[in-house]
Amino acid sequence: MPRYKLKLEYDGTGFAGMQKQPGMITVQETVETAIFGFSREIVNLYAAGRTDKGVHALGQIVHFDLNKYFEPAKLVYAINHYLQGYKVVVLNAEIVDDNFHARFSAKERSYTYIILNRIAPSVIDFNRVWHIREKLDINLMQEAANKIIGTHDFTSFRAAMCQSLKPIKTINNLQITKEGEYIFINISAISFLYHMVRNIVGTLRFIGNKKWPPEKIVEILLAKNRAIAGPTAPACGLYFKEVLY
Amino acid sequence: MPRYKLKLEYDGTGFAGMQKQPGMITVQETVETAIFGFSREIVNLYAAGRTDKGVHALGQIVHFDLNKYFEPAKLVYAINHYLQGYKVVVLNAEIVDDNFHARFSAKERSYTYIILNRIAPSVIDFNRVWHIREKLDINLMQEAANKIIGTHDFTSFRAAMCQSLKPIKTINNLQITKEGEYIFINISAISFLYHMVRNIVGTLRFIGNKKWPPEKIVEILLAKNRAIAGPTAPACGLYFKEVLY
Repeated sequence: MPRYKLKLEYDGTGFAGMQKQPGMITVQETVETAIFGFSREIVNLYAAGRTDKGVHALGQIVHFDLNKYFEPAKLVYAINHYLQGYKVVVLNAEIVDDNFHARFSAKERSYTYIILNRIAPSVIDFNRVWHIREKLDINLMQEAANKIIGTHDFTSFRAAMCQSLKPIKTINNLQITKEGEYIFINISAISFLYHMVRNIVGTLRFIGNKKWPPEKIVEILLAKNRAIAGPTAPACGLYFKEVLY
Repeated sequence: MPRYKLKLEYDGTGFAGMQKQPGMITVQETVETAIFGFSREIVNLYAAGRTDKGVHALGQIVHFDLNKYFEPAKLVYAINHYLQGYKVVVLNAEIVDDNFHARFSAKERSYTYIILNRIAPSVIDFNRVWHIREKLDINLMQEAANKIIGTHDFTSFRAAMCQSLKPIKTINNLQITKEGEYIFINISAISFLYHMVRNIVGTLRFIGNKKWPPEKIVEILLAKNRAIAGPTAPACGLYFKEVLY
């Protein structure tokens, strides 16, 4: 029974998120239905990241099993044929070992958060960036970011609905770059708490606009209290980018 | 009577083009209506480029006159307030001399055409790029592009509906670059014939995929015959980028 690993791109705008939910249009259900379309097999899709409603993906990884063998390039073509008109597409497929698990085998997950920092609202990038009017200083944001790289208790950046057993996570990388009016916040970790990336971004925004000094982020981290961190940044600026195994 | 110059960004997807047409939603009418919204003055908008249905703009330039004086930064804010929910936004405003004309004073216009060159269709960039499956060689495309830089009779790249008096145009710059799966075709000229950029892109595609050798573009140019050039590239990949005065 071959196991297939897929790399997906999707525009999160039209989806209620990655994970299947009754009565909702989700990425999982859309892709499972497309796989059924050509294979006539009912599969269960396992994803590396359970992205929320409105969050995009440039490199979500999923796996599933089929009774039949398909040549990977043909599988990509066949699934994409059934995905026509949907805002999700298969970028790549490969056959993997039975031990491979999209979620549990992952060694690092990377997200990019995009901010459009200008007076005028976004039009070309509507629903694809977070539009922030006030000028952000990325040097201050990076100074704060450097203080939370590493292993910490991230309770202050954890949403109430989070199902993780413990709040200790390790941020491997947190780099902020700017190209013209666009600010890119790149963050990598083995795994994240629920809303952790968006809560960190919402906090970095208040450092970039000088509401808070960079040192404040240490105070927030040590407080282990979600109420004192910045608000959750909107889903539309977040991209699930890459998974390492 | 102050004359105002605006820089506009728009997503061409929902518009029947820049120029006003009865019964159609155009950029011109949308912006004129927004200006009326706060100023109560009926204006006539003049644009540097009459972009087609589906063509985007990152830096379209327009001008118009008002009886009243408005501080430019406040004008941007006021027009954008009335543009909420529309796919067009004012990036910048300035007061210009009475002699300034958005169309006739322009010294150079620049467009960028974006191709997504990969097997999988575009999802994140749906309606914002031209998706081409077959691998394109940008070195061959650049070799051909170099042969049409300068002043030539561009009849072979001119749409039947073109209203220009003569088909002689001067391409100042035509550079092709690649970033990952994205190919950017940057082209500048004083002015262009109708569909000229899209017809050049449609021809460069057949050179990039080796249907035609780079030399073929000279043959096409000399033939002065639209029928032998490549097909018109779709509007969705085209961005009106910048105007020099």
